[in-house]
Amino acid sequence: MTRILTQAVPLRRRREGAPETDLSSLHELSAADGARLIRERVISAEQLVGACLQRVREIDDRVQAWAFLDPAHALAQARAADALQASGRSIGPLHGVPVGLKDIIDTADMPTENGSVLHAGRAPSRDASVVTMVRAAGAVIMGKTVTTEFATRHPGKTRNPHDPGHTPGGSSSGSAAAVAAGMVPLSLGSQTTGSTIRPASYCGVYGFKPTHGLIPRSGMFQLSRSLDHVGLFARSIDDIALLMEQIVGHDAGDPDTRPRAHLAFRTLAAEAPPRPPMLAFVRTARWNDVDADARDALGALVAQLGAQVEEIELVPAASEAGRWQEVISGPEMAANLAREWASGRDQLSAALRARIERGRAVTAVEYLQAQASLPDLHASFTALLDQRYDAILTPTASGTAPAGLASTGEPTFCTLWTLCGMPALSLPLLHGANGLPLGVQLVGPRHGDARLLRTARWLVELAGG
Amino acid sequence: MTRILTQAVPLRRRREGAPETDLSSLHELSAADGARLIRERVISAEQLVGACLQRVREIDDRVQAWAFLDPAHALAQARAADALQASGRSIGPLHGVPVGLKDIIDTADMPTENGSVLHAGRAPSRDASVVTMVRAAGAVIMGKTVTTEFATRHPGKTRNPHDPGHTPGGSSSGSAAAVAAGMVPLSLGSQTTGSTIRPASYCGVYGFKPTHGLIPRSGMFQLSRSLDHVGLFARSIDDIALLMEQIVGHDAGDPDTRPRAHLAFRTLAAEAPPRPPMLAFVRTARWNDVDADARDALGALVAQLGAQVEEIELVPAASEAGRWQEVISGPEMAANLAREWASGRDQLSAALRARIERGRAVTAVEYLQAQASLPDLHASFTALLDQRYDAILTPTASGTAPAGLASTGEPTFCTLWTLCGMPALSLPLLHGANGLPLGVQLVGPRHGDARLLRTARWLVELAGG
Repeated sequence: MTRILTQAVPLRRRREGAPETDLSSLHELSAADGARLIRERVISAEQLVGACLQRVREIDDRVQAWAFLDPAHALAQARAADALQASGRSIGPLHGVPVGLKDIIDTADMPTENGSVLHAGRAPSRDASVVTMVRAAGAVIMGKTVTTEFATRHPGKTRNPHDPGHTPGGSSSGSAAAVAAGMVPLSLGSQTTGSTIRPASYCGVYGFKPTHGLIPRSGMFQLSRSLDHVGLFARSIDDIALLMEQIVGHDAGDPDTRPRAHLAFRTLAAEAPPRPPMLAFVRTARWNDVDADARDALGALVAQLGAQVEEIELVPAASEAGRWQEVISGPEMAANLAREWASGRDQLSAALRARIERGRAVTAVEYLQAQASLPDLHASFTALLDQRYDAILTPTASGTAPAGLASTGEPTFCTLWTLCGMPALSLPLLHGANGLPLGVQLVGPRHGDARLLRTARWLVELAGG
Repeated sequence: MTRILTQAVPLRRRREGAPETDLSSLHELSAADGARLIRERVISAEQLVGACLQRVREIDDRVQAWAFLDPAHALAQARAADALQASGRSIGPLHGVPVGLKDIIDTADMPTENGSVLHAGRAPSRDASVVTMVRAAGAVIMGKTVTTEFATRHPGKTRNPHDPGHTPGGSSSGSAAAVAAGMVPLSLGSQTTGSTIRPASYCGVYGFKPTHGLIPRSGMFQLSRSLDHVGLFARSIDDIALLMEQIVGHDAGDPDTRPRAHLAFRTLAAEAPPRPPMLAFVRTARWNDVDADARDALGALVAQLGAQVEEIELVPAASEAGRWQEVISGPEMAANLAREWASGRDQLSAALRARIERGRAVTAVEYLQAQASLPDLHASFTALLDQRYDAILTPTASGTAPAGLASTGEPTFCTLWTLCGMPALSLPLLHGANGLPLGVQLVGPRHGDARLLRTARWLVELAGG
């Protein structure tokens, strides 16, 4: 089984001893440590990227995380980063750090095929906004990670790095698996229902879906403007915060983004909470669908939290979330895939065809009424999280990664939080009876992203202690 | 026939002579002059409001502009304004100036019945955002002006002040007629298709529909979020600019507004253009529907403009505007009137019932595809108006106000500009063969509102000279 890192390697301790840099384990570095060692000229970007490429060679036959990876091009970017640093010019916070990108995120120098044979050979001429931003921070774009068909359900080739007989989850399958297997310290994905939280939970890494509209989606395949979010994967909360700092921003190409003051996510996430956080435990209406061992594991965590957690019932409107999500995302998907539907329908999976057909049957009035229902739901969560709780604690999924590769698992436990555009984080704190990892979902109020990371760090320390 | 003022009364000249204030004609004052005379303590707010109320008594039996008007309450506001000024506290730019409000704009101190018996007796507990803003500027809310049924087509009781046998246009019927008849110097209305430009044209006043999202609509009856705009009526461009300065703003209750830097509309509109403006004359695809005398009148104006106007053809996509407008506004109207449809359908006009039925039949995919078509159309107008033209010159309507009160006329000539959210102004420069007024429509690029007013002033001076 792949060794999964949920903590940064304790480099300081190693540096006290003899070989200051152990090149054989550079792929295990967190992004923050990798960037720091490059900045301090302890290692080069080429060494870091080379170590990650070596890890790909060793393990990716088994994991199949990559839709596109050109080692020479990744190394060329790394050498260019080293040359820039050698020239004495200022370098960014991710200088020389390799990042994986879900293959629905456009790159001007690599194909972007959106997980469908209909887009085979597609080569965009421009980078997506998030790509421009991570490149500006100095990152090396390692390659494109496997996505399900158009970021929906039909699986790609990727396997769970903990057990290749199990799904890695989806739709950001390759992004989660690549980080879990140590092939990159960071990756970007997306979430329209549960496409970040679920694979993060199944693969045992941190997965973060920030507030809707916080990160521009320009240049990414659009499935549903109302529900599409950029997703982040890393092996530590600090790395999630580091990546967040680079990609929050306004982009005129994404009408849901706004100009905002810069937030120092790393600093804010690293601060101690001013008082012990209070969590609201939400079993959800589908608690009975949760596997017994997952219920037990989550129950033990809740018990450990003691007075810092209270179980709450959601407002009745929350039970409508699944229907509203279908009524909103269905037609948006159908409209965004209209060309593929018109001229390539037989190359779509049967599941996607059925979903598009359902979306095409929704009336505009039904769509608008579902949209109009959301503000009240938002307000109920804003009130709940303003008044009494720092975050909601809730399952990520019904259990660990299901066996087999025919399905990427059920996103049901993410639907409500995605629909509400609330920041949600999967923390790799639990395990199933089968030894596979299982995440815990922590959900915050809209735009409470930095505080959610701070609360999450507190929870991880408490659960680990 | 009512005397219609399209210029501010030349007060300076009168003030050189004997009676410095002629109380019998205070209702003819522009808002700017009224506010100035109050500020200079030449007249009181009570005198100005009293003169306007006297005008209402004299003429409103014939015009029927008001859905609600309580003279005592208007006078009480005026006396409170006078008392505030007497106390020495600072006063706003509209201090003591009476303003009429279309009866779809909520007022906490007067009913707001939205032009439907279904909302008879409706008394909101809060002012709409624009009401808060004009009150903060010192305005006296004179009363509520007649709207068609839910700001759609079915007419109210108002008649054209130039000839009571003709429609005033709609849906902002009372707001246009009240300003035209000298009952208030300013009024607010709305436009979802042609509800400001058309009645302004028919009634011979200035009517302005600013850029979509510039003025918050919170607290107004929502017909169509995508197409609803606040509309302004006045008897001079300066008064339009003065009113604009008070009501542009961000409001969290209107998600289409944004925080913006303050623009000094009056100063900007009063400046001389840096070079003679270039206008693009657009006949539109429905030019053959324009009455011969209206074609002649507009043609004469175009001839007068000489080298400062060029005729252009619109991009083919513009011909789709009518269909897109139906596909967008139909379902939005149907969703916003869902409760009235469910439980008061028989109290809706047959025309509105038919429109709601058409809206309910639109699929969400059709709706989303129409919405997705707009950015390209926007871009084509932005390019046109950035590169070569200051504004588009185009008909307001097919001619002067039609005879009869059963219809408020056709909004077709406004559809495209409303759909694109572009600022549009009706200038009372022409007359039909029947002597009734006829506006000229001037359309600018989105957010070019102040410059459009400047160009309009140039055009009015040129046409008048």
